[in-house]
Amino acid sequence: MNLTTCLKKMELVGVLAFATVDHNGAPQIRNISAIHYEPDALYFFTARGKNFCRELEEDGRVQILCYTKYKEMIRLSGRARAVEASRQIYWRDKIFEEQPYLANVYPGDTRDIGIVFCIDQGDVEYFNLGVNPIFREIYPLGNATIQEKGYVITDRCIGCGTCQAKCPQRCITAGAPYQIQQEHCLHCGSCLENCPANAIERRG
Amino acid sequence: MNLTTCLKKMELVGVLAFATVDHNGAPQIRNISAIHYEPDALYFFTARGKNFCRELEEDGRVQILCYTKYKEMIRLSGRARAVEASRQIYWRDKIFEEQPYLANVYPGDTRDIGIVFCIDQGDVEYFNLGVNPIFREIYPLGNATIQEKGYVITDRCIGCGTCQAKCPQRCITAGAPYQIQQEHCLHCGSCLENCPANAIERRG
Repeated sequence: MNLTTCLKKMELVGVLAFATVDHNGAPQIRNISAIHYEPDALYFFTARGKNFCRELEEDGRVQILCYTKYKEMIRLSGRARAVEASRQIYWRDKIFEEQPYLANVYPGDTRDIGIVFCIDQGDVEYFNLGVNPIFREIYPLGNATIQEKGYVITDRCIGCGTCQAKCPQRCITAGAPYQIQQEHCLHCGSCLENCPANAIERRG
Repeated sequence: MNLTTCLKKMELVGVLAFATVDHNGAPQIRNISAIHYEPDALYFFTARGKNFCRELEEDGRVQILCYTKYKEMIRLSGRARAVEASRQIYWRDKIFEEQPYLANVYPGDTRDIGIVFCIDQGDVEYFNLGVNPIFREIYPLGNATIQEKGYVITDRCIGCGTCQAKCPQRCITAGAPYQIQQEHCLHCGSCLENCPANAIERRG
């Protein structure tokens, strides 16, 4: 799996869930399909009067979730910025051309209430719960740095093997220290809770 | 449309997007299908070591999004709370019984790392962009009070009809003042931007 394939899968799914945070710090989520895909960026359309637009302008942080027909989850995390004024119409009309239903929602000139945002920095996570063991990977988008998550086993490991036995995905390899196969980890925390030596640390 | 039908549609879709806010105030979103539905509540399973669990315990606010095959969007907003300790196993095992795939992800006793949360207060929004004009409604869940959103036309309306002409959904009725048909409103803000009398107010 890789970034390009993930973006292509998102494009094929079409209708994605976009999460933002409102001015009360509360989570907000909605479906968006007015999206144009470039190899390394997403452009999407909304209306200036929607709370979604306000949240993008005031905070900008967004997560986008895609669930494919193959039961894969793809999640893009990034920061959205309004496209520069001189390029708004170009991207807006491209999105309307690719998504003809938009002309039913915003007929004629009423599309003028729209605004186009771009995300070109962030990361994309791939997560497949339908294989055994489960599989996950994360790819940078643009120049963003990836924040590693989940758990690591430190040198305090005493080699007792408890974590391995308690791991739902059996994704811990014996060694000194024992090692979590990060690409197969659920991030469930069972290893940390059960380690008698307090040798496991949480990241992120 | 009504609350019961919306919850049934969510159950039929099965895999939903859950949005929360993390300790940095950033939006977080993931797919969840380990859900049991009661007529007036949702019970869902996650693992204690996941960031999702931490966000539910530290903040609790969650929005759940469902996109049906009929192109309807259903969004539940509420506050999740961990089920009381004495009922954890009851609800957990009910969820595992209804969703057999969970036993592949958490085989045998490894399901002990799980925790069940409940949402029984909040609201459910129904939004259908596939009809003309678009249709939306909102229903309370439990004893929660609904926060109205969108726009209203106040008594400052001078009856010029500009808002009506600029409305993408043509959902504004002439009168003194003119009136927005809330169930058909996109919340796009075109009426407010174009009103020459500054007669339109935003709610929420």
